[in-house]
Amino acid sequence: MYTIGIDVGGTNTKFGVVDKAGNILKQDRILTNSDQEVSFFVKNLAKKLQPMIDEFGGKNNFKGIGMGAPNANYYKGTIEYAANLKAWKGVIPMAELMENQFGLETKLTNDANAAAMGEMMYGVTKDIRHFITITLGTGVGSGIVIDGKIVLGCDGFAGELGHVTVRPGGRLHKGTGMRGTLETYASATGVRETVLEFLSENPNEPSLLRNYKEEDITSEVVYNCAIQGDAIAIRTFEFTGQILGEALAAFVLFSSPEAIVLFGGLTKAGDLLLNPTRKAMEENILTAFKGKVKLLVSTLKEADAAILGASALVC
Amino acid sequence: MYTIGIDVGGTNTKFGVVDKAGNILKQDRILTNSDQEVSFFVKNLAKKLQPMIDEFGGKNNFKGIGMGAPNANYYKGTIEYAANLKAWKGVIPMAELMENQFGLETKLTNDANAAAMGEMMYGVTKDIRHFITITLGTGVGSGIVIDGKIVLGCDGFAGELGHVTVRPGGRLHKGTGMRGTLETYASATGVRETVLEFLSENPNEPSLLRNYKEEDITSEVVYNCAIQGDAIAIRTFEFTGQILGEALAAFVLFSSPEAIVLFGGLTKAGDLLLNPTRKAMEENILTAFKGKVKLLVSTLKEADAAILGASALVC
Repeated sequence: MYTIGIDVGGTNTKFGVVDKAGNILKQDRILTNSDQEVSFFVKNLAKKLQPMIDEFGGKNNFKGIGMGAPNANYYKGTIEYAANLKAWKGVIPMAELMENQFGLETKLTNDANAAAMGEMMYGVTKDIRHFITITLGTGVGSGIVIDGKIVLGCDGFAGELGHVTVRPGGRLHKGTGMRGTLETYASATGVRETVLEFLSENPNEPSLLRNYKEEDITSEVVYNCAIQGDAIAIRTFEFTGQILGEALAAFVLFSSPEAIVLFGGLTKAGDLLLNPTRKAMEENILTAFKGKVKLLVSTLKEADAAILGASALVC
Repeated sequence: MYTIGIDVGGTNTKFGVVDKAGNILKQDRILTNSDQEVSFFVKNLAKKLQPMIDEFGGKNNFKGIGMGAPNANYYKGTIEYAANLKAWKGVIPMAELMENQFGLETKLTNDANAAAMGEMMYGVTKDIRHFITITLGTGVGSGIVIDGKIVLGCDGFAGELGHVTVRPGGRLHKGTGMRGTLETYASATGVRETVLEFLSENPNEPSLLRNYKEEDITSEVVYNCAIQGDAIAIRTFEFTGQILGEALAAFVLFSSPEAIVLFGGLTKAGDLLLNPTRKAMEENILTAFKGKVKLLVSTLKEADAAILGASALVC
């Protein structure tokens, strides 16, 4: 028996056929095209996914479909008010749409929870029952695992740690209207905003970053400048790590995890980001926790973790 | 069969005999006397508790002893590095000491977790499987319940929400050395500190509070002045509620509880505290959560909740 894992992102949707041992036997992707109605997405997906299902013996050989998607509700099988999925407004009955299309039971959870499940089954937390994954990408996502189970909360929406306020009255988050949330600082977008602030606040400080046009400054550019010793770029990661570490400290006090697993684009900054993060985390926890929480970086390929994790929903 | 519930506090220790239906059949208290060695406590407790056990037919009629205590570790049966239990330094093997004294199996959890269990079994969250209790007393304690189970974390120390940083670089907490933590603002001690700050920052603003000696200003005094319309007293509760509400928002984003239950001395301030708390909480959560989380005040007597909750450890 096989399962299908699908990772719905703001831009791309990746999907694959997964066997019992957790091998992705075949995978592909489509554009999510969330500026079109969701029925367009399902039809588009079917064009590539149905032949895959047929190739592996048809739907009777499949246990079901697991999907990770932003704002997905495990209990209801819906995607609700997803800010990054433009035309998919309100409550999208995704599980029902998928079941109608493919005739296979479909379960949904949010994309970060799916990634956490992938991590638990095949990644650095294989033997760890209490951990939190934090995705540092365009945004900041999170999946919380307590006693080997994903925390869903009363309504399936638990684990929105990217939207925790870390600097009351701080940066405005355009998508949510909230201020000073973790995502406004500890995401690729946040790093870009920080570095632009630092550059304009210190007009006389030389920096390699001044060789770039403003629109070309990405978190990758900041990283490249930082490893060349650029002071503003290094301070940007220190500042980002400081805020991230403070937030992680709060999460540690909440669920006392054995490990926190970081993944996503920003983790490429390595110790430039991890050292200040670890320092700020340790400074903001009680003695009983100090030195105990492992700060790990995922070794799974992002796409694989999400597909595998999603597929595990119907294991 | 009966159980014994014990609530170890910084000053008093309360204990009682509990029947299957959750009635406290008999209860008493001793001074904790934590400035003496823990063996002194156990002997003192035995003087009053052993006659109770005998009165109800001896130890064979008891399933065991459940204890709630600061910094208690459920997994190990220890009390570890409790800042408020002065002479009980390092790791205290409380379960073992109790078993040796009374010949009854003894389980421990932290006092706030015990209160949360009491709330779940007999209080306002009887039918709620996802909630967080926050004790607003001299300090700030918390118990987190997910899917009907207390969150203990990897080491039994989860749920230390009073020590979450809410104002980076803010007030110093003398006990922990940390800055800007929830407990430094949203406790009776914090309210007193806030009001003293407001009084000295606004020397020309008249206030009923100026009729009191500084050392006599407690959170009760602030409450009494607030209900008489005193502006500084009212602002003190608004400020406290603002910070508390921001912190609760973060907890909501973490575990998506159906309810947050407040208890402890500060809740006597009622809507003076609850209204600004609710407002700040709602402002700092995502649309998907808005208007959904119940903010409740415990109706259990504090001592009863703790004794009943502790007794439930050995149910």
